[in-house]
Amino acid sequence: MGGYTMSATLDHPYEETVRAVRSELQQQGFGVLTEVDLRATFREKLDVDLAPQIIMGACRPSLAYEALQADPSIAAVLPCNVVVRAIDDSTTRVEALDPDVMMGLSDVGGLDSVAAEARQRLTAMLAALTKGT
Amino acid sequence: MGGYTMSATLDHPYEETVRAVRSELQQQGFGVLTEVDLRATFREKLDVDLAPQIIMGACRPSLAYEALQADPSIAAVLPCNVVVRAIDDSTTRVEALDPDVMMGLSDVGGLDSVAAEARQRLTAMLAALTKGT
Repeated sequence: MGGYTMSATLDHPYEETVRAVRSELQQQGFGVLTEVDLRATFREKLDVDLAPQIIMGACRPSLAYEALQADPSIAAVLPCNVVVRAIDDSTTRVEALDPDVMMGLSDVGGLDSVAAEARQRLTAMLAALTKGT
Repeated sequence: MGGYTMSATLDHPYEETVRAVRSELQQQGFGVLTEVDLRATFREKLDVDLAPQIIMGACRPSLAYEALQADPSIAAVLPCNVVVRAIDDSTTRVEALDPDVMMGLSDVGGLDSVAAEARQRLTAMLAALTKGT
């Protein structure tokens, strides 16, 4: 489980972690293009109760543009999802889709450098979050 | 290119196809949770001009819930992206991330039936769009 994601588990409550992730994504040059509050969605659609969790669609435009120039189909895996999920009241997990996995789906060349830079920036984000713990 | 997507190329203009995709996704029980207008995003952020294209994040709540119960990390590939992209004034491409690929990222059991049902519904959507051509 999780071999396709990059993740960190933090000793911080959910809401605080969501704010920290937003801030650190911005620090790393990612804009958040989409947000899905999974708990609210499932409560509304299925009347079931999930742990608080949100999917943020993060995009660094220059990297996304480079990827799309190499393979227009790569739009099908953009933006890069960063998921924040409450484990308990004081523990939260942050999990991003691994850019190596995303870009590895395409057999078109020219995506390795995009994946490497995205990965480096997500690693820095997770390190900053962990350091803040 | 495109081995990780399911796609159809339609002899219809972009805007009309976007409307048809919305309608057919609904027919297949998918809600659209997110939308990214890639052309507008790149124009604003990078001042570059892409072909008209939109990423719709499609979700069938019952399938997503089943997948999350099997592997919470699967949130990192949800919702399922369906991309509509103008090829020229009268030709539009519709491309969905292949659920087999999404679910295949996880090594947790219990996702095969989710992937199969999602795939069947997306196949039906593409068939309906193609039939409409």
